[in-house]
Amino acid sequence: MHLTKQVIADLENRYRAHLINSLSGFKSANLVGTQDSNGQTNLAIVSSVFHLGAHPPLVGMIIRPHSVPRHTLENLLATKQYTINHVNKDIYCKAHQTSARYDKDESEFDATGLSTEYLNGFTAPFVKESKLKYALELKEHHHLAINGTELIIGEITDIYLDEACLQEDGFVDIEAIGTVAVSGLDSYHVTERLARLAYAKK
Amino acid sequence: MHLTKQVIADLENRYRAHLINSLSGFKSANLVGTQDSNGQTNLAIVSSVFHLGAHPPLVGMIIRPHSVPRHTLENLLATKQYTINHVNKDIYCKAHQTSARYDKDESEFDATGLSTEYLNGFTAPFVKESKLKYALELKEHHHLAINGTELIIGEITDIYLDEACLQEDGFVDIEAIGTVAVSGLDSYHVTERLARLAYAKK
Repeated sequence: MHLTKQVIADLENRYRAHLINSLSGFKSANLVGTQDSNGQTNLAIVSSVFHLGAHPPLVGMIIRPHSVPRHTLENLLATKQYTINHVNKDIYCKAHQTSARYDKDESEFDATGLSTEYLNGFTAPFVKESKLKYALELKEHHHLAINGTELIIGEITDIYLDEACLQEDGFVDIEAIGTVAVSGLDSYHVTERLARLAYAKK
Repeated sequence: MHLTKQVIADLENRYRAHLINSLSGFKSANLVGTQDSNGQTNLAIVSSVFHLGAHPPLVGMIIRPHSVPRHTLENLLATKQYTINHVNKDIYCKAHQTSARYDKDESEFDATGLSTEYLNGFTAPFVKESKLKYALELKEHHHLAINGTELIIGEITDIYLDEACLQEDGFVDIEAIGTVAVSGLDSYHVTERLARLAYAKK
């Protein structure tokens, strides 16, 4: 089956959103925790978190200012602090629910029943139920004029994880802690390891 | 277990690479196909492809110019054309092998046994063994000075997929076609769907 540029352009908007969101492959499932200067907390599920570099430890994510997580963007630009928390199979329904259009004065923590956790003086809230989470300091944001999205780049300053999932070489077994993957806009998946492969040589 | 910024900075380089690469969550597994102006083909596994927007249909990816896929970067900057091909469970070992340091005049297609496929006059090669693939036109590239990586943004112009995996609402069942997910630097996973969830409302 071949879909041409014209066919894609002529698709109904919601259909195209489902289709194009499926094409990048499996996506990460993370909850981004922030709070504003008054301590009002916010939590948003984000499927666009990606590895940017290990040294310094940098993570990128894309935020659509005109869709739901605008409070996230406002808070992290104002406070420069946020947390990223892996979504696991026990909390994926609550995590998905954070994408509803809550008002600024409603916390997604309260609305979904997820718990705030404050660690070592960091002002942004972590998700207590998440088994792998880290604190980030905002380093850069780039407005991508091509479609009005924002690229957010943060540096990892503190990592919290279960020692049992950290392997000898630094690899974290995120499957063992039930971290889920996303496909499309709304499909959640657990995983089954095929293999870890050796560093490829000619 | 709490790893502080100083602990992270003091880690051995390879250990830190494994650790930090695990933190973003599950990653997409894609093969990027290009060729140079002489028709020399190149194929590189990339785990940083991400959805950027549906309308226009945009996909981003991060390339490290100083690591292996430099031929990919050169080719796509020169020709403005590339293909993205989902890695499935039947080809993930060959896909991983494309990350070895082949010379410019060696094609990863030949070296790994994956097959080129040319579709509808598009000059960049597709991977015949991939069950979901699309053609892209380079729209923008941004040098991210913070760590010397390149953000590549392309527009999807043609999509090729098996009609059986395309659902009524536009969602593509990438699990059904065996698309794999990556964690860390070298771990490959198949998936098992938990659920598709309804659009979240208050």
